[in-house]
Amino acid sequence: MTLEITENETTLAIIQTLKDRKKEQFLSIMDELQPYDIAQQYLNLPNKHKNKFIMYLPTEQLTYMIQELDKEDQLLVLEKLGIERSTQVLDLMDNDDLVSLLEELEPEKVEEILSEMKEEESTIVQNMMKYSPETAGRIMTNLYVWIPKTYTVREAVDKLKHFAELAEYLNYLYVIGEKKELVGVVSYKDLLLADMYEKIEDIMFSRVVTVDVHTDQEEVAKLINRYDFISIPVIEENNKLVGVVTVDDVMDIIYQEANEDIEKLSASGKAIDFNTKPFVAAFRRLPWLILLLFIGIVSGSIIAGFEETLDKVVALAFFMPMIAGMTGNTGTQSLAVVVRGLTKDDLNVKEVIKLVMRELWVGIIIGVTCGILIAIIALFWQGNATLGLVVGVSLLVTLIIGTLSGTIIPLILYKFNVDPAVASGPLITTINDIISLFVYFGIATMFLSKLM
Amino acid sequence: MTLEITENETTLAIIQTLKDRKKEQFLSIMDELQPYDIAQQYLNLPNKHKNKFIMYLPTEQLTYMIQELDKEDQLLVLEKLGIERSTQVLDLMDNDDLVSLLEELEPEKVEEILSEMKEEESTIVQNMMKYSPETAGRIMTNLYVWIPKTYTVREAVDKLKHFAELAEYLNYLYVIGEKKELVGVVSYKDLLLADMYEKIEDIMFSRVVTVDVHTDQEEVAKLINRYDFISIPVIEENNKLVGVVTVDDVMDIIYQEANEDIEKLSASGKAIDFNTKPFVAAFRRLPWLILLLFIGIVSGSIIAGFEETLDKVVALAFFMPMIAGMTGNTGTQSLAVVVRGLTKDDLNVKEVIKLVMRELWVGIIIGVTCGILIAIIALFWQGNATLGLVVGVSLLVTLIIGTLSGTIIPLILYKFNVDPAVASGPLITTINDIISLFVYFGIATMFLSKLM
Repeated sequence: MTLEITENETTLAIIQTLKDRKKEQFLSIMDELQPYDIAQQYLNLPNKHKNKFIMYLPTEQLTYMIQELDKEDQLLVLEKLGIERSTQVLDLMDNDDLVSLLEELEPEKVEEILSEMKEEESTIVQNMMKYSPETAGRIMTNLYVWIPKTYTVREAVDKLKHFAELAEYLNYLYVIGEKKELVGVVSYKDLLLADMYEKIEDIMFSRVVTVDVHTDQEEVAKLINRYDFISIPVIEENNKLVGVVTVDDVMDIIYQEANEDIEKLSASGKAIDFNTKPFVAAFRRLPWLILLLFIGIVSGSIIAGFEETLDKVVALAFFMPMIAGMTGNTGTQSLAVVVRGLTKDDLNVKEVIKLVMRELWVGIIIGVTCGILIAIIALFWQGNATLGLVVGVSLLVTLIIGTLSGTIIPLILYKFNVDPAVASGPLITTINDIISLFVYFGIATMFLSKLM
Repeated sequence: MTLEITENETTLAIIQTLKDRKKEQFLSIMDELQPYDIAQQYLNLPNKHKNKFIMYLPTEQLTYMIQELDKEDQLLVLEKLGIERSTQVLDLMDNDDLVSLLEELEPEKVEEILSEMKEEESTIVQNMMKYSPETAGRIMTNLYVWIPKTYTVREAVDKLKHFAELAEYLNYLYVIGEKKELVGVVSYKDLLLADMYEKIEDIMFSRVVTVDVHTDQEEVAKLINRYDFISIPVIEENNKLVGVVTVDDVMDIIYQEANEDIEKLSASGKAIDFNTKPFVAAFRRLPWLILLLFIGIVSGSIIAGFEETLDKVVALAFFMPMIAGMTGNTGTQSLAVVVRGLTKDDLNVKEVIKLVMRELWVGIIIGVTCGILIAIIALFWQGNATLGLVVGVSLLVTLIIGTLSGTIIPLILYKFNVDPAVASGPLITTINDIISLFVYFGIATMFLSKLM
């Protein structure tokens, strides 16, 4: 970034203007900053200067700044503002940002806030909150420009000018019919290139890609990314236009969904970031670990079931972690490929069969390679050809099973509309752990007389 | 999506028009489709109709369609086109799409293609290819509008109209000085709201957030997402404006980087998707699995080193997979939190210390909880209080160590500019595996007389 002065110098300059009560100088610094930067400056400021910072900042800039903060800090600032000014801020806030703030609060608090706001704004927000979280209806904004199809290009340009300050993006104008039903879209480019007296309905693009209010946000992100849109219109029954989802929110969704996939795949617990408190983080992770602990007990009792075999050939224990670890890993590899693949593409039956066959082959190739390798190592290390054979064959079999279960289980879950990432991580670990121990000790017991 | 006719019906209609050689009807279907949809239709088409599809499609629409295909299909279509038409397409293609196609090809093939293109276009592409992959210079486009700072608002609007068809987005106009150095930015909104005779330099925003040609694409994505931009200007020495990176490319980058993080964390091998061939997929995964196999051998030899202990108390083997598995998992949990956290935030020393202390506490909390739980289970299952104590204390110690190594190792790698996701996955697995076995058998050997 080429900023003439660095962030720290800016902070010092801001503190100086606040100390000297030079509001005009303070405002001229703020005018040069992006909302995100203003928020960072505010957060970096020593606490004793924060009240004056908020006091000096005009309500509009303050609103933009608040939208850049995380929810905890948003609430702290709103409390500092007092009822009158915080209501002004809430009225100015983008609906989608306001909804995502409110959904974290107690119902009584939400009611209190809504009752203080302008009725028009509060009705819109209340309507949005009726939709399920993580759907298009929850993340849409009403800051877009719509025009009746009967407008001329000149009328459209005039309306656009009038709403320029309000709309998030000006790239598209949505065209509606008599009942506010969406009938087409016109890009700003089209307006620039058209004759001023043409009718909008004659130049509009009528095959509009839309999402329903109930569409999952991941699906919305997929569509915006697929079509390289800046925004996508949201409709409800009878094609009625009720909002748009913009690309900046979609970027956050893509980050969020990727993080969720990683959380689920690594079983690392929900929504832990750098600011999560230790107790909260520990208790979000504990369920997975306790589940794993019990899976470990199940594995342990399988081993206990083969105690006699193990007692006779202690060397079998040496290869136990390797076989369990590799089977688990190969399952996770397949799972990761399936889960991420599904975020970008949808699959039909033909493709599913192709994918399962591919993974079967992958399992065979890696099984044969690793099986031969470990058989040779076991032979030379323990000087026992039968042990080498037992370990090698076990690894071959478990790697093939591990690969297939890591592919098929998430696909089945996906088919039944269960998120494959969340349910299959521990499921695949359990199944692979148990199968690998059964296969290993089963084969070993079969060859027991030759092993000793 | 509310499309009046479904995708399949469209396909049938297209095939009919191609069969009946009704070019005009074919073109009117195409005019209603987005480039992505045209590409999907082309891919779904039976092979015998593909040549006519390409022949009928106007070169401009064909170019848009090709930009939506993956690289293999792009090359197949270009080959079908013949030299003359494929050169027209290449000239029309967005530079960033062209560069990402060329970087996959043999150097001779690249030279051949570039030599056939317009010199102006080929120079731009050659310049872009000088930058390292995954930097701003490689992914920028030259389809943006710039204006000299001496322009009036009216002149700017006129230029904008002139370039409307070319530019990817019209949201911002970049303002340059005499040496093409970037001096400011004007949004289209600003132009609409300003007086026609005002000078651009008087209304422009001069504190422009930019990226350098060498900036990593992940950093570019971070900035665009942070500031909710639609595009960000790319500069080289002396602040010279050389391109912009647009939000649609950034969305692809966010997907790609998230997939890379998941690939690395799950050690699932590079760039495996639903279309990867089995041999390729297997050989991309094998390195990790072979590494894991050798780690397994190291673990095995640690167990072998404690053979005497294990021989005397076989029950110790029952808890081995559980302890190794849980230590490995807790390390991966911490690693996932750190790796994903770093994609959105940068850390200073104070925050690093805070994070490490947080994870230490997390380790203690989950260690104590799981340790007590397993001690009780071991006591009742095996009826041996000492065994319960050994297993419980081992788990407590290894969970704390696992959590810390999963936090500290990726932070150290990040500090030395090594990607924490790629290097620390297997590293943490190794370290945690080895430490957990040492701790477990070490403690068990200490209490051996009481265990028997």
